[in-house]
Amino acid sequence: MTDPSTNMRLKLPITCFILQIILIILFGVLVQYDEDTDAKKHHHGNHSESKSDIENDFYYRYPSFQDVHVMIFVGFGFLMTFLQRYGFSSVGFNFLIAAFSLQWATLMQGFFHGLHEGKIHIGVESMINADFCTGSVLISFGAVLGKTSPVQLLFMAVFEVTLFAVNEFILLTLLGTKDAGGSMTIHTFGAYFGLMVTRILYRPNLDKSKHKNCSVYHSDLFAMIGTLYLWMFWPSFNSAVTEHGDPQHRTAMNTYYSLAACTLSTYAMSSLTAHDGKLDMVHIQNAALAGGVAAGTAGEMMLTPFGSMIVGFLAGIISVLGFKYLTPILENKLKIQDTCGIHNLHGMPGVLGAIVGAVTASLASKEVYGEGLEKVFPDVASGKRTASDQGGVQAISLAVTLGMALFGGLIVGFILKLPIFGAPRDTTCFEDSLYWEVPGEEESHEDQLTTVKTEESDKLNS
Amino acid sequence: MTDPSTNMRLKLPITCFILQIILIILFGVLVQYDEDTDAKKHHHGNHSESKSDIENDFYYRYPSFQDVHVMIFVGFGFLMTFLQRYGFSSVGFNFLIAAFSLQWATLMQGFFHGLHEGKIHIGVESMINADFCTGSVLISFGAVLGKTSPVQLLFMAVFEVTLFAVNEFILLTLLGTKDAGGSMTIHTFGAYFGLMVTRILYRPNLDKSKHKNCSVYHSDLFAMIGTLYLWMFWPSFNSAVTEHGDPQHRTAMNTYYSLAACTLSTYAMSSLTAHDGKLDMVHIQNAALAGGVAAGTAGEMMLTPFGSMIVGFLAGIISVLGFKYLTPILENKLKIQDTCGIHNLHGMPGVLGAIVGAVTASLASKEVYGEGLEKVFPDVASGKRTASDQGGVQAISLAVTLGMALFGGLIVGFILKLPIFGAPRDTTCFEDSLYWEVPGEEESHEDQLTTVKTEESDKLNS
Amino acid sequence: MTDPSTNMRLKLPITCFILQIILIILFGVLVQYDEDTDAKKHHHGNHSESKSDIENDFYYRYPSFQDVHVMIFVGFGFLMTFLQRYGFSSVGFNFLIAAFSLQWATLMQGFFHGLHEGKIHIGVESMINADFCTGSVLISFGAVLGKTSPVQLLFMAVFEVTLFAVNEFILLTLLGTKDAGGSMTIHTFGAYFGLMVTRILYRPNLDKSKHKNCSVYHSDLFAMIGTLYLWMFWPSFNSAVTEHGDPQHRTAMNTYYSLAACTLSTYAMSSLTAHDGKLDMVHIQNAALAGGVAAGTAGEMMLTPFGSMIVGFLAGIISVLGFKYLTPILENKLKIQDTCGIHNLHGMPGVLGAIVGAVTASLASKEVYGEGLEKVFPDVASGKRTASDQGGVQAISLAVTLGMALFGGLIVGFILKLPIFGAPRDTTCFEDSLYWEVPGEEESHEDQLTTVKTEESDKLNS
Repeated sequence: MTDPSTNMRLKLPITCFILQIILIILFGVLVQYDEDTDAKKHHHGNHSESKSDIENDFYYRYPSFQDVHVMIFVGFGFLMTFLQRYGFSSVGFNFLIAAFSLQWATLMQGFFHGLHEGKIHIGVESMINADFCTGSVLISFGAVLGKTSPVQLLFMAVFEVTLFAVNEFILLTLLGTKDAGGSMTIHTFGAYFGLMVTRILYRPNLDKSKHKNCSVYHSDLFAMIGTLYLWMFWPSFNSAVTEHGDPQHRTAMNTYYSLAACTLSTYAMSSLTAHDGKLDMVHIQNAALAGGVAAGTAGEMMLTPFGSMIVGFLAGIISVLGFKYLTPILENKLKIQDTCGIHNLHGMPGVLGAIVGAVTASLASKEVYGEGLEKVFPDVASGKRTASDQGGVQAISLAVTLGMALFGGLIVGFILKLPIFGAPRDTTCFEDSLYWEVPGEEESHEDQLTTVKTEESDKLNS
Repeated sequence: MTDPSTNMRLKLPITCFILQIILIILFGVLVQYDEDTDAKKHHHGNHSESKSDIENDFYYRYPSFQDVHVMIFVGFGFLMTFLQRYGFSSVGFNFLIAAFSLQWATLMQGFFHGLHEGKIHIGVESMINADFCTGSVLISFGAVLGKTSPVQLLFMAVFEVTLFAVNEFILLTLLGTKDAGGSMTIHTFGAYFGLMVTRILYRPNLDKSKHKNCSVYHSDLFAMIGTLYLWMFWPSFNSAVTEHGDPQHRTAMNTYYSLAACTLSTYAMSSLTAHDGKLDMVHIQNAALAGGVAAGTAGEMMLTPFGSMIVGFLAGIISVLGFKYLTPILENKLKIQDTCGIHNLHGMPGVLGAIVGAVTASLASKEVYGEGLEKVFPDVASGKRTASDQGGVQAISLAVTLGMALFGGLIVGFILKLPIFGAPRDTTCFEDSLYWEVPGEEESHEDQLTTVKTEESDKLNS
Repeated sequence: MTDPSTNMRLKLPITCFILQIILIILFGVLVQYDEDTDAKKHHHGNHSESKSDIENDFYYRYPSFQDVHVMIFVGFGFLMTFLQRYGFSSVGFNFLIAAFSLQWATLMQGFFHGLHEGKIHIGVESMINADFCTGSVLISFGAVLGKTSPVQLLFMAVFEVTLFAVNEFILLTLLGTKDAGGSMTIHTFGAYFGLMVTRILYRPNLDKSKHKNCSVYHSDLFAMIGTLYLWMFWPSFNSAVTEHGDPQHRTAMNTYYSLAACTLSTYAMSSLTAHDGKLDMVHIQNAALAGGVAAGTAGEMMLTPFGSMIVGFLAGIISVLGFKYLTPILENKLKIQDTCGIHNLHGMPGVLGAIVGAVTASLASKEVYGEGLEKVFPDVASGKRTASDQGGVQAISLAVTLGMALFGGLIVGFILKLPIFGAPRDTTCFEDSLYWEVPGEEESHEDQLTTVKTEESDKLNS
């Protein structure tokens, strides 16, 4: 009785197997351990430079990597469990496409970041970068959540990871842009890519499954697990691939204060914009995170805690206003059905972060950064470009990212519209039972207690 | 139809905005990056002392910071979700007042810990200390949980953070007390402050919302998430701001064994004190953590794993006995309505920890600590005071803390009683829907499956 | 009215108290701080060797320790909450037996790893090892989940920890086997020990509580919290006690890719083996982790990401096939009632991991490992044995482990069958209310909202 057009029996296994086998083969051909991971290379280096084990990049970055990893799998995964009957798919497809994307990103980023005699060298930094790229895919997933099959999502990931790597290459390598926390490369890119995809996949009759596109009490609590892990570990996210030492330290601290300020403005705006002053869980779950997004570019710069707090404060306000007033307009006028409101959490705050980054970069000077200028703006320190040039480059990078994201989303949206990927029907969106064996209802509690007591007294009487 | 006296429409936004704007201005005027966070300062230091990047305080303390951060937001937040209809408020107000408190604490602690040419210098250690101070506020929150509006809580935080910083200054700076894990400064202070506040806010008719002041099956599981994160990361909490090297290592280990022993005595006592031998989730969720509280002062000392286990063992017993026999007395005789039982988790174990700390300090000697005495008891190592003097100072510190907490709680309680803060009515305590848009009920599962199947077969037939 | 044979009123408290008091006494007599934890020893070492604080083993291993700790308490604990009415027991007994086992393991492993003048020296590495040994007990717990009293579980832990330490001693010390992530010592041992115990405790009438041996919607989401924490932190698990530097780095990375590949093959197989292509939560929750188990031995070797992915890919396939086809056979033909399917998650993938480890070891050479050979295979580097000898030793170790586990499980199973431990009846298996005060049902949401609104308007009218 299942619908053959949405049945995953063959589509999903074949897609997973083929993708994974391709990945394995490409890893076999292309990937090698880097200096700090290889038994042979590490110890050669060791002797000549007397580099202590503690200076292995692992000890600088692995704790941050694990925090980022939690954000990707628990943070994004549980944030999306707010839907009442889509928790398995939210956390489960998040898991699947993340596990795929991090492998594919290793290859794509490795390819663009520079080969070593035809080989991609990997270590903890590449693992973080792969997780970052995955984060971008998961942001896009938020826009199409509930309306796409896992096969569509896997193909979206194939293309999006590739485009992400190209965009990142243009920004970080060709243009010399600074964007350690990815306001542009991760958030702006992922958001506008996803928004364009969901625009192309527009469903005029989505209101047929409208009653399922909402939360219940416990699903909102599950989502708060996701929110809090994203919030707590965002300082690690933004600082994970900055230079060692003070930049990592400073980035984590800037992000910490940006998020704190953002949380207060989110609560204020959520209560203020409700007619009865009641807080809306959607705002708390999402807008309180905008401060992390908005500190993604400038976090490593000498933004100061003061500057970070202003940025976070504004991000929270913008984000709640977006949920309240812009999302309905996007849906009704522009036909953009954005399930998780990624435009408010990643889109606008990402653009804000890019602008803040451009302004902060243009104000960089030897006076403020001292010798540390080298670590944050190597091109400015070396005299290759002025600080205001760097600011200009940052601004251009935002435009490039928006262009790449929108154009990429357009193409990929049309690809995903092909009927071969088994998209769900309008009536079965936001519904786990299409893809999962869903367990039956819980026996009522009182019934069970009665059962136990009856049985126990039976035993005693016997 | 909403009650204007409890409506938050203006009160909450105005409070959040004003507090946040004050914070931003004060940060702008007073706060600077410290040596290890500033691009300029760090690299100056670097050249002369040839301090490697890995010796940036970030790498010593950031993993501990993140663990503490999880305890504050997920640990405390979810621990309080045990109430059946107050999960949004538990985790949500925890989030709000923590985000405020950590900013305010940065200023207050920075002010008392010593200004540098009129400026507060901040880095990872100050972030941990801000989280610690926040923890104290969240402990007090546990006493008044369900009976206070978010505006009351924010004002409580304003005053409590300030008093916390004063008390901490008296203990750590003026008296030279050792209390790295905060048995006194955090737990004893937060608990007795909160108990006094809830005493002043006594509600004789609280039984009107009694039916909501209890857990349901899934809310107890959510609370266990909080419990376990507190339990697992308590070794990081107690060791987060001890000196580098062996003290951090030793503190984490002592706390680990104290908690393990505490868990066994908690299970034993919970079963023993129930008439039918059944375990009580309240005990497991709370008393099993008392071992961490009680190891807060002596954890960094040469307490030995043996000593730590005895301390944890006793803490678990005391805590369960408190829940079972003392909490009802406090409520009925002393009119102290302690929602989360913070007296049993933070109050008594905190006092126990302070006493253990005083005794252990008075036994300190060069023979046991060797050169390490300098790191743990600098005043004793330098001959400024004897070990028994140090023990005496520790004991005096407990008295000072109790006095500050009770007196502060008294004043703040009366302030919070003012009718302007929108406290909930007796009938609407422990109820999320007063402050939150609460989603409707979940559609029954079988209904949904039926819907899907019907619709699918409709499609097939069409 | 409670059944005296299963009542825990005296059995559980007495067991907990006696075990904990014995532990405290033995710690008092036997345990001391190690070099890096002791205030005196650490600073002596410091002066002569000028070892910086950052080179304290704490900074190499504590972040990994905390990740492992989360796996033990949240990972294993929540993974087992999938049962609809056994969540309190899953997470609560997991907590109890883990808190006991880590103390007992410290003593047993300390004893076998070598005494220092009659004393056991402990630090962060011994804490990790104690958590590892605990993990093995929790694996066995998965086989008997729902069918054993907490007293049975504590006694199982007493014996299993002891046997674990003996087996680990034979492998790591006597034979010189490499098994840093414990494919053999932890997973194979824990799985086959548990399977033998559950075989001996076979309940022919277990179908009397069959209706409770299944999940509900939210219990499956809670279980996913466990799954994801295990998955995310497995790289830390496998690398936690490898040598400093490149081995830790490489192990984490190998495990990361093994798990990613395993996840794709798990999704593929889960969909492929269902008649309607729907994914099964049991597979996702468990089989996706098999890649971590299977990389436990060879993870620190030069397995390469390519090799790791092949291993993970196969592990996922084997594991899903096991759940689908082997578990029913084990239950019906061999009378092995394996509640959590540990044979599929830990048993077969553990054996696979051991074999991969033997093969990879036998291929080790100076050419591939360079100077790093010393760190991974000291016996091969020193010429004490050839690489193929090392491979042979690895294979023998698997046989030894299987023998120890099955024989140990046999004996311990018969001990646990004694009627004194208060095992639950067939009718009360998988039921929390036998051991816990279980809260009543949640008031319906609409009712509550109505109550609030009515009361609020009452106030307004009055």
